Amino acid sequence: MKKGQDLKLKVIPIGGLGLIGMNMTAFEYNDSIVVVDCGLAFPENDMLGIDMVIPDVTYLKENIDKVKGMVFTHGHEDHIGALPYILKELNVPIYATKLTMGLIERKLTENNLMKGTKRKVVRPGQSINLGEFRIEFIKTNHSIQDAVALAIYSPAGTVVHTGDFKVDYTPVFGDAIDLQRFAEIGKKGVLALMCDSTNAERKGFTASERTVGRTIDNLFAENRERRIIIATFASNVDRVQQIINTAYKYGRKVVVEGRSMVNVISTAAELGYLNIPDNTLIDLEQMKNYPDDQMVLITTGSQGESMAALSRMAANMHKKVVIKPGDTVIFSSNPIPGNEKAVSKVINELTMKGANVIFQDVHVSGHACQEEIKLIYTLVHPKYAIPVHGEYRHLKAQATLAEGLGIEKDHIFLLKTGDVLEMDADDAKVTGHVQTGAILVDGLGVGDVGNIVLRDRQHLAEDGIVIAVLTLEKYSNQILAGPDIVSRGFVYVREAEDLMEEARSVVEEAMDGCISHRVTDWGKMKNAIRDSLGDFLWKRTKRRPMILPIIMEVE
Amino acid sequence: MKKGQDLKLKVIPIGGLGLIGMNMTAFEYNDSIVVVDCGLAFPENDMLGIDMVIPDVTYLKENIDKVKGMVFTHGHEDHIGALPYILKELNVPIYATKLTMGLIERKLTENNLMKGTKRKVVRPGQSINLGEFRIEFIKTNHSIQDAVALAIYSPAGTVVHTGDFKVDYTPVFGDAIDLQRFAEIGKKGVLALMCDSTNAERKGFTASERTVGRTIDNLFAENRERRIIIATFASNVDRVQQIINTAYKYGRKVVVEGRSMVNVISTAAELGYLNIPDNTLIDLEQMKNYPDDQMVLITTGSQGESMAALSRMAANMHKKVVIKPGDTVIFSSNPIPGNEKAVSKVINELTMKGANVIFQDVHVSGHACQEEIKLIYTLVHPKYAIPVHGEYRHLKAQATLAEGLGIEKDHIFLLKTGDVLEMDADDAKVTGHVQTGAILVDGLGVGDVGNIVLRDRQHLAEDGIVIAVLTLEKYSNQILAGPDIVSRGFVYVREAEDLMEEARSVVEEAMDGCISHRVTDWGKMKNAIRDSLGDFLWKRTKRRPMILPIIMEVE
Repeated sequence: MKKGQDLKLKVIPIGGLGLIGMNMTAFEYNDSIVVVDCGLAFPENDMLGIDMVIPDVTYLKENIDKVKGMVFTHGHEDHIGALPYILKELNVPIYATKLTMGLIERKLTENNLMKGTKRKVVRPGQSINLGEFRIEFIKTNHSIQDAVALAIYSPAGTVVHTGDFKVDYTPVFGDAIDLQRFAEIGKKGVLALMCDSTNAERKGFTASERTVGRTIDNLFAENRERRIIIATFASNVDRVQQIINTAYKYGRKVVVEGRSMVNVISTAAELGYLNIPDNTLIDLEQMKNYPDDQMVLITTGSQGESMAALSRMAANMHKKVVIKPGDTVIFSSNPIPGNEKAVSKVINELTMKGANVIFQDVHVSGHACQEEIKLIYTLVHPKYAIPVHGEYRHLKAQATLAEGLGIEKDHIFLLKTGDVLEMDADDAKVTGHVQTGAILVDGLGVGDVGNIVLRDRQHLAEDGIVIAVLTLEKYSNQILAGPDIVSRGFVYVREAEDLMEEARSVVEEAMDGCISHRVTDWGKMKNAIRDSLGDFLWKRTKRRPMILPIIMEVE
Repeated sequence: MKKGQDLKLKVIPIGGLGLIGMNMTAFEYNDSIVVVDCGLAFPENDMLGIDMVIPDVTYLKENIDKVKGMVFTHGHEDHIGALPYILKELNVPIYATKLTMGLIERKLTENNLMKGTKRKVVRPGQSINLGEFRIEFIKTNHSIQDAVALAIYSPAGTVVHTGDFKVDYTPVFGDAIDLQRFAEIGKKGVLALMCDSTNAERKGFTASERTVGRTIDNLFAENRERRIIIATFASNVDRVQQIINTAYKYGRKVVVEGRSMVNVISTAAELGYLNIPDNTLIDLEQMKNYPDDQMVLITTGSQGESMAALSRMAANMHKKVVIKPGDTVIFSSNPIPGNEKAVSKVINELTMKGANVIFQDVHVSGHACQEEIKLIYTLVHPKYAIPVHGEYRHLKAQATLAEGLGIEKDHIFLLKTGDVLEMDADDAKVTGHVQTGAILVDGLGVGDVGNIVLRDRQHLAEDGIVIAVLTLEKYSNQILAGPDIVSRGFVYVREAEDLMEEARSVVEEAMDGCISHRVTDWGKMKNAIRDSLGDFLWKRTKRRPMILPIIMEVE
């Protein structure tokens, strides 16, 4: 082994680049590995039937002896959501700030993982030692409280990882981002900055969370007579706090609806991150006891998720809340890309029920825009830039910003998941690649749905399936039963009896052909059925259902 | 029959309300029906495998003797796209302006419908008589040339239908919208205004198409050294014209790529709507003979459509165009809601190939914003308002504008498809409802995919299918072969052999149960298989694949 001071620091994204979500990065020096975050990703449109996606941690499993711990930047699903799955394979101590740990512990409890997991709550400003690393937690702002950046100190140099962040000079709760500490660390010399790229295409500054509070206050003033229903992100505790404050000011009771909203609020309130005045929060059941102008309902469903509370209200499928003409429904959110149509559907349904729907300008982002990114770069003054958190276009936009700030082009690294970036004060380069990937979770199955199954699902979704089944006599190969044609998702069978009867004849002919050519191999018979039936259906319908021949055998 | 002057005018939306696209409206007076537009809709996300959606014209077929003709407002697919299907059921004369008719005739030719269809080209400013109606074509502006509004004169009063429109005082080609004529008709008295609602939520005015020309000019100036690739809507002939003008000015040759782009440009050029300087347009094959800084490629794919030319270039699947570092790719378009992720994917892929991608502010809408809508209301000064073209939220937004302009609330009609609105100078109300609906087109099948097939496709897409197949001896009901378990889209079978073997046992047990209880009814046997196998798989995987029992019989 080389001497300590000759070793390099390795940065290895295990997930999170080139795909939104699934944030997880390994930092390796000598015999120590520290992992930052352990997030899930939500499935892409073509991942049919998939519940979530988690990172492949083969590299960490193979180096489990080196892994000293896992450190979390904040409590969003794309940073903590894969933990219950990964902990089962990789039992390592975990470190997080109080609210983040509270949200993690809720997951661990659900998965019976509390007892087996070593946990430590860390305060912003504190440091922990993990093998050859020291990790300092630095206060930032984000759309969830208790978010931190990390200064990762190694013998080869320091890396600053921002996590998801914005600069909020006037946060609703707690302090502004600790810019002085970023400056101090920068002054001492930073090897690399890993900075949030989500909003790197957006000019200017992200507005303070407090501005949303003022907007909400105005909306309450304008809608004094009406029942108010507000949908927002469950995890945005400061947003919920501002809604509660305004409700209290206007003498309204607050009902919280939607499972994730109830969960987050109860965790946040228990841990002291949410301050709810007495007699303000009431149960959904009690809502009927108050007139409309004394009620606020805070709900999930701001992204049009089909099973969320607001979507169920809009679709008349909510058991306890009926939308009435005169209700004011506020989306305190913007649609996440991909959710626009779902959100619009809910807005249409609410509007049809006579609700007054407000969906513009009642939200601010939790991510830094260009001026904030430039500020952090200027304070930290890194030698190398490694844009993180975002699609490739966002990483590239940050790279362009970094170049504009004078960082040399070949000091900027647009990494891919699995890349091994080795660096020290003299040099940085990608020296290899480790196994990574996206593991699909479907129900209880983790990784049992792969490309073949997904391709079949897409094929089935597109044109359905046509099954040709027949029973052969084992020795003579004579057809004893069938062929029968069964289809699902292909055509409405009651109105396509002729087509199905013709399809049966086509299969019969194909089998006759096989028999007269003395074909006895089932594989060949199935291919003959697949080809002739496929051709026939394409000619007649211009569709290509999955063709599934099944041959049974009777002795 | 009542006397003419006592009769009312009926307005019946056959499609187009509550769903984007599929625009088609019937106007009926006494024994005359005139139909405006005949559009298709693109399938919603849950319409798996569907190519397009067309309106159910049962009402028109039942009243075919009354239908005097079909009139078109402009040549976009959501206004003309269903015509080839509908003409086969409803052979009526069609009337349109020159470019619109050119685009229609291209469709009729492809469908062998030219000979059998009576067609007449009408100029803006002209009128035609259709039964008891007179229809006047009024020049408007839109994102395709030759768009018109219609004044529909009946003995019961006049309806003005704007079609899709914007107010462009400085259009690229031809005249501005004929505001004077709107004023004149308004002055004489208008019963109802049916006005485009698409942008009714947006404040202010839509900018002139000409402003995009200036932006494109600036981009050409800034990218003198680079190859330029511009994606835009094929049908936006004025946009294409401006790109060609700028290319000519900067001494660049133009290549057109993508089938719909080539089609529209050739139709527009033939009919004189596109002015291409000599030696400017070259074939894709010739592109290699010119240096990058002398080339512009105009292409389809601005919406991230997976098979469009630009998407194929981005994915390295285009046979003739390879994206190179240094290329400038301009999206002269905004993503249509629902296409955001697809567009983003293409931007990411292009960026990864080193292209400089520009996607902001190189587009203007073709639809009127709030100030334009107010202008038209003020000029036309209708008694009744019937917002059209848009989702419910947009119709509602226009209704709010109309109320603000002093139209009485009960004179504003948010119709649903199929509603029969009867009106005259004294009164207007919805008096009934006719059969309408969305007919799904999948390959050659028109209407053979309905809710059952779609539900099956969704089920198959979500969790796949598990087939349990067995052969019984007819009289004894003994199992001669099987049960065999075959699955697709459920689980990767090679790694789930145990699960499949257990599933087989579960089916065997279910059948044993049936036999020991002397169940001989196949329906009951299948239910027993379905229930026990479904329960088993749910317990083991928390997935609910479609369970399909197939029983064969041998004598």
